[in-house]
Amino acid sequence: MLRKTLPSWTSQARLCRQMSVVAKSLKYTEHGEPQDVLKLVEDKLADPKDKQVLVKILAAPINPADINTIQGKYPVKPKFPAIAGNEFVGEVVCVGDQVKGLQPGAHVVPLASGLGTWTTHAVYTEDQLLAISSKVGLAEAATITVNPCTAYRMLKDFVQLSPGDTVIQNGANSAVGQAVHQLCRAWGINSVGIVRNRPEISELKQLLQGLGATAVLTEEEMRTSDLFKTGKLKRPQLALNCVGGKSATEVSRHLNDRGVMVTYGGMSREPVTVATGPLIFKDIAFRGFWMTRWSKENYSAPERKQMFQELCQLMEQEKFVAPTHEMVPLEKFKEAAAAALNFKGFTGKKFILDMSC
Amino acid sequence: MLRKTLPSWTSQARLCRQMSVVAKSLKYTEHGEPQDVLKLVEDKLADPKDKQVLVKILAAPINPADINTIQGKYPVKPKFPAIAGNEFVGEVVCVGDQVKGLQPGAHVVPLASGLGTWTTHAVYTEDQLLAISSKVGLAEAATITVNPCTAYRMLKDFVQLSPGDTVIQNGANSAVGQAVHQLCRAWGINSVGIVRNRPEISELKQLLQGLGATAVLTEEEMRTSDLFKTGKLKRPQLALNCVGGKSATEVSRHLNDRGVMVTYGGMSREPVTVATGPLIFKDIAFRGFWMTRWSKENYSAPERKQMFQELCQLMEQEKFVAPTHEMVPLEKFKEAAAAALNFKGFTGKKFILDMSC
Repeated sequence: MLRKTLPSWTSQARLCRQMSVVAKSLKYTEHGEPQDVLKLVEDKLADPKDKQVLVKILAAPINPADINTIQGKYPVKPKFPAIAGNEFVGEVVCVGDQVKGLQPGAHVVPLASGLGTWTTHAVYTEDQLLAISSKVGLAEAATITVNPCTAYRMLKDFVQLSPGDTVIQNGANSAVGQAVHQLCRAWGINSVGIVRNRPEISELKQLLQGLGATAVLTEEEMRTSDLFKTGKLKRPQLALNCVGGKSATEVSRHLNDRGVMVTYGGMSREPVTVATGPLIFKDIAFRGFWMTRWSKENYSAPERKQMFQELCQLMEQEKFVAPTHEMVPLEKFKEAAAAALNFKGFTGKKFILDMSC
Repeated sequence: MLRKTLPSWTSQARLCRQMSVVAKSLKYTEHGEPQDVLKLVEDKLADPKDKQVLVKILAAPINPADINTIQGKYPVKPKFPAIAGNEFVGEVVCVGDQVKGLQPGAHVVPLASGLGTWTTHAVYTEDQLLAISSKVGLAEAATITVNPCTAYRMLKDFVQLSPGDTVIQNGANSAVGQAVHQLCRAWGINSVGIVRNRPEISELKQLLQGLGATAVLTEEEMRTSDLFKTGKLKRPQLALNCVGGKSATEVSRHLNDRGVMVTYGGMSREPVTVATGPLIFKDIAFRGFWMTRWSKENYSAPERKQMFQELCQLMEQEKFVAPTHEMVPLEKFKEAAAAALNFKGFTGKKFILDMSC
């Protein structure tokens, strides 16, 4: 957790118009593999004016969607030359004269997507930024806008869940999966996680149970489990799917009447197969969720403010931690990008570029 | 269309307590193929008392769900011995002394399901029946509660449709499909129907266009059609699926962002395959609909009354006709049941048992 003290920045802020900031950024001018197309480029930034804000980026994660965007496989296409990255936590260095709500020293995260965040410094506008408490840890703040918000919205917007209800999810060790377990714990909801079997399965189960998972089962274990048959746990009203294929089919089988399966990823690259019977006779619904769309459509909505407040509070109280991650310096982006590519989709460790030193 | 005149029944009603009605019913005592397990049985009916109503059945259709129920393949299981059939139109013969809203001579259709309707006469209770205008044709009235209601609800309850919007459906020549075309015509909605290719395709297209279909295409034609690309027709917000498999996938591909595919049948016996991309990035939803559940949950709801009123009005005005059908006498049930089994699912002609003579 990094907590810069305000005075140093405040004195720097006074020098704003005399500053000459050189930003080191990971830029690309064509689609391709990140390690091939990303170049570390230096640009001198102009002083912020009007509603602009000069931000020193402290940390920025490498998300699967960032990789896919660089590859040209994501529905969102950047304008070239583009700085990679979507999330960050930064510290305000100085502000233009029409900025009203941000002070130098404030910690900020992005409200807008596609800002280009794999950089040491950037000039954004005030309305693209959200100030958050500097008591929120660096890794938590850097990763707050995508995965925790995805988990939060999927738990809030599809079915009405009450304490004691159950949620089931595959890819339960994904960054979103880890967020789901923690939010369920905070809200008194049972969360059952399905993961693929692996040599270190017992450590993984322990990790997820430590985050609040009520039960963690391998796909094979789930197939023969009587978890919902004995009445020990209510049948889930909500299933979250980031895998697809057989895994999705298996998870959907456990849904209660009127249950909803929300797909937010497709790690297996196989479609979701939906049997006609459960659709008709159990009234199961299959939906999808894309955080980018929700954030655009609810840019200034009170629900969004409320969500960030609630997440920050849980983070400050250390009831919500960042997904398993490794901080790497910006200069090591090639190694980090290559490692991120070996994620095998949404599981494994998240890499966070660390520009805080 | 059969329109009995009231006086004869009224005089019969006076004799109610002296009547001795023998009902001929198609009964079964075990599951199996209809032509094997159904027996034509005679039973003497007791006079209706309290809230009971003696009904002379005029016509009762053979629906796919009836066949599946007899076979034991439907989620609704009858108590044996059971009279087959779920729908009918009948005429009230006489009523018990606590019946308030039904007069002898009134035409009635079932509000409840599983009443056992393949019979000449039956005693029901008043709350199981809905009086409808005798101006509604016999075939229309006999088939009002399942297929037209399914079409009506699917068009009303999943997306908000306005005149000029588009609905797409496969199995467009099914009984529900025919109802969809007619309701869309009445409500100013474009309806695009997909059917399998067949020798008599041009006659089928003509038939469906006569019912109001905006366009009817074979699966092959749809694959290369530019119907929604030229802007001639809005992209559909609603897709109706009674086929599954590749047909469902193909139809869902044409949905607009935020579109919904509603599955109400699975003629191909193949599941619906849902690609991850459209779920997440286009926010397409896959839902199911089962009329039996809706009717149970909305037994006395004002929406249900409103629906029947609207459908009856369209039928009286001859803006809505029964699906392609053949009337067969009760005694020919074996031939009719065998022919119904050769329906190939939900397409083809509907058979209606005719007890009106």
